[in-house]
Amino acid sequence: MRMYDLIMKKRNGGVLNEDEIKFMISGYTEGSIPDYQMSAMMMAIYFQGMNEEETLYLTRAMEYSGETLDLSAIHGIKVDKHSTGGVGDKTSLALTPMVAACGIPVAKMSGRGLGHTGGTIDKLESFPGFTTGISTETFIRNVNDIGIAIMGQTADLAPADKKLYALRDVTATVDNMSLIASSIMSKKLASGADAIVLDVKTGSGAFMKKEEEAFALAKEMTTLGNNAGRKTYAVISDMDQPLGFAVGNALEVREAIETLQGNGPDDFVELCMTLGSYMLIAGGKASDVEEAKGYLKKVIEDGSALQKLGQFVRAQGGDDRAVFDPELLPKASIVEDILSDREGYISHIECDEIGVCSLILGGGRETKESEIDLSVGLVLRGKVGDFVKKGESIAVIHGNDRDKIAQAKERFLKAYSFSKSPVEKKPFIKGVITP
Amino acid sequence: MRMYDLIMKKRNGGVLNEDEIKFMISGYTEGSIPDYQMSAMMMAIYFQGMNEEETLYLTRAMEYSGETLDLSAIHGIKVDKHSTGGVGDKTSLALTPMVAACGIPVAKMSGRGLGHTGGTIDKLESFPGFTTGISTETFIRNVNDIGIAIMGQTADLAPADKKLYALRDVTATVDNMSLIASSIMSKKLASGADAIVLDVKTGSGAFMKKEEEAFALAKEMTTLGNNAGRKTYAVISDMDQPLGFAVGNALEVREAIETLQGNGPDDFVELCMTLGSYMLIAGGKASDVEEAKGYLKKVIEDGSALQKLGQFVRAQGGDDRAVFDPELLPKASIVEDILSDREGYISHIECDEIGVCSLILGGGRETKESEIDLSVGLVLRGKVGDFVKKGESIAVIHGNDRDKIAQAKERFLKAYSFSKSPVEKKPFIKGVITP
Repeated sequence: MRMYDLIMKKRNGGVLNEDEIKFMISGYTEGSIPDYQMSAMMMAIYFQGMNEEETLYLTRAMEYSGETLDLSAIHGIKVDKHSTGGVGDKTSLALTPMVAACGIPVAKMSGRGLGHTGGTIDKLESFPGFTTGISTETFIRNVNDIGIAIMGQTADLAPADKKLYALRDVTATVDNMSLIASSIMSKKLASGADAIVLDVKTGSGAFMKKEEEAFALAKEMTTLGNNAGRKTYAVISDMDQPLGFAVGNALEVREAIETLQGNGPDDFVELCMTLGSYMLIAGGKASDVEEAKGYLKKVIEDGSALQKLGQFVRAQGGDDRAVFDPELLPKASIVEDILSDREGYISHIECDEIGVCSLILGGGRETKESEIDLSVGLVLRGKVGDFVKKGESIAVIHGNDRDKIAQAKERFLKAYSFSKSPVEKKPFIKGVITP
Repeated sequence: MRMYDLIMKKRNGGVLNEDEIKFMISGYTEGSIPDYQMSAMMMAIYFQGMNEEETLYLTRAMEYSGETLDLSAIHGIKVDKHSTGGVGDKTSLALTPMVAACGIPVAKMSGRGLGHTGGTIDKLESFPGFTTGISTETFIRNVNDIGIAIMGQTADLAPADKKLYALRDVTATVDNMSLIASSIMSKKLASGADAIVLDVKTGSGAFMKKEEEAFALAKEMTTLGNNAGRKTYAVISDMDQPLGFAVGNALEVREAIETLQGNGPDDFVELCMTLGSYMLIAGGKASDVEEAKGYLKKVIEDGSALQKLGQFVRAQGGDDRAVFDPELLPKASIVEDILSDREGYISHIECDEIGVCSLILGGGRETKESEIDLSVGLVLRGKVGDFVKKGESIAVIHGNDRDKIAQAKERFLKAYSFSKSPVEKKPFIKGVITP
């Protein structure tokens, strides 16, 4: 078999079979197929697409390109959750203790990721001493003992995806539905969960700007997951403005804690309740959403979800005092209001731009080597549809550098659009795909 | 400027401007743009195409990616000729002395090339001592003194094309009209001629199997040449069966000599007369084809074209005795008839396959390092439309190895198709494109 012939076949609109895709992925992983042939193939796939079978073969070939995690030693149905990412996305921080408190084991791999704020792991490092650098043995033991553990993504998991994504990233071949879906799902499948709940975002702060694209990706991923024998759900939710109010690492941890205390922002609570419900259903704890929501409300009301977060932080070496006293979380030296320069109903918040403000303040990574400042960020005071007077505070900015604050403020104000007439609030959950 | 953005632009159907194409080609030539980005770009171009301006910018960027040949020291209008290649294509061997004998300076760069037989340079090495490794000074002096010189292609001419073609060759991105045309024309333009006559082949032995593709390529190349300020002509001719009768290096040299003696095969003579006419017109020697053909016939009849070949071979260090006594050319040790296994009118000769027979005998190169056996090859006895009896000789095979001969014979017979009813001979010249 020659990679040249496979490129030609795909270029001419052909369908690659399982052996061909396995050959391509194993050759690329081990280095016998060079980058320049793979990038030509990716561009051919961009134009010719892949059908459902090809996408499944690609996903599974990447899933098995390195180690896979064996979670069979964990009792019960393991349910994983994955978000396509957005601004202010602190979902795992609140959702996983909620679900664990309901008795569903959470064995999660998380990344640091490049972006406007850090990944889940960075955020969790707001608790001094907390580490995700735990062994697989500790990981499994913790899940069995306290129902929850989060581990850093190891390099050995789906290495083909890692190499291929890096190549796609520099050759303008990222935005193909099959390639995006197989990239996400290969890692999820290799992570060993029995069921998967996907949080697919759409809007100006999401990778999928358009709702129909988000639905298409959700459909593609759930099909992949189900074809691979894992029950897979997808919730399509709004990311046309930041999720909740807080954007920034420690600020988001605080908002997650407040949510576990029963004081979360409406949209964020709705998301946690919805994702959580499907995780409970997938895990066999509840038979429908109503029943599931009952359990989730209870673990917030009785404080057991918050206790679970504390237990989890402690079990991974962290100081859990801030879980119960958020004032102890990392704090910025300068905290100021951003005053509105206009008046009216907020009609649009350019969501990506709010992320960029967080990045400017030092809250995210521009390169892999960047150090994150956990204390900085922004807390919005209103969302789309809210009325704002000129000179009134629309957000609180947290920073450690006057110049950066000035720069972020200017950009922040420009990200808002106002309307003289009232603006309708759109539904936050756009849809759900069940197996 | 970033290559990533250019790939994205082209992928999305955009048009690259002159600066962008220059950036891309200079970056790729010097190595700052990696192969994997360029191959993604080539695949994007395969799908999105390039318009006339883009193709011209690409061609000129490659033309100026290395040295260009300054032929201004040569008196008169320098006319170059280029063939897209085929089986039995010995055109330069007969055509260039004919044109030079008419007083049009021939300053030609030739390649060795990979293929079924050697390139023009290999064939000329049938004359002991002949070399194309001459300095640019000798090259120019010879053209001024005797009207003709052929030089090996130097690596410094259009290095971008060389690098890019090698990449396209392994990434299934060769067959795009704009890329093919710019590859050929960048080298021709860098070679410095004032006018160019292109010999574009079509049929089972040509790169362009279909006539409409050959016309499209011819149109693309002539447009490029004319837009670059060089008068460019194209003759589209048949390569659905071998050109002339001889296939193989020394055998083709012999056929070229016979043609200069007035005894050439009809199709080959017609091709030399047609290409030669446009070279004389481009060179200002003749005002129309009729007049040009008169001059070309004369230099054959009076022996001056053959004398010119001898002069040329001598001037480049070769022993010219074989020019006047072809029996002295390299000879194979085994010369046998191939007897037809069927009877009927020859309806088709799978032209590529005849080339492969020559390659099997040792007459071509499979890799750059292969040694060519100049003596081997095949001489057909008939062409499409001719009637053959079973057991009658349809060709003479020249070889130095019994096994190879047996293998080539078997393959040769399979390349022929026969018909019980008479087969019409199709026109050999398919069309001409003038500036």
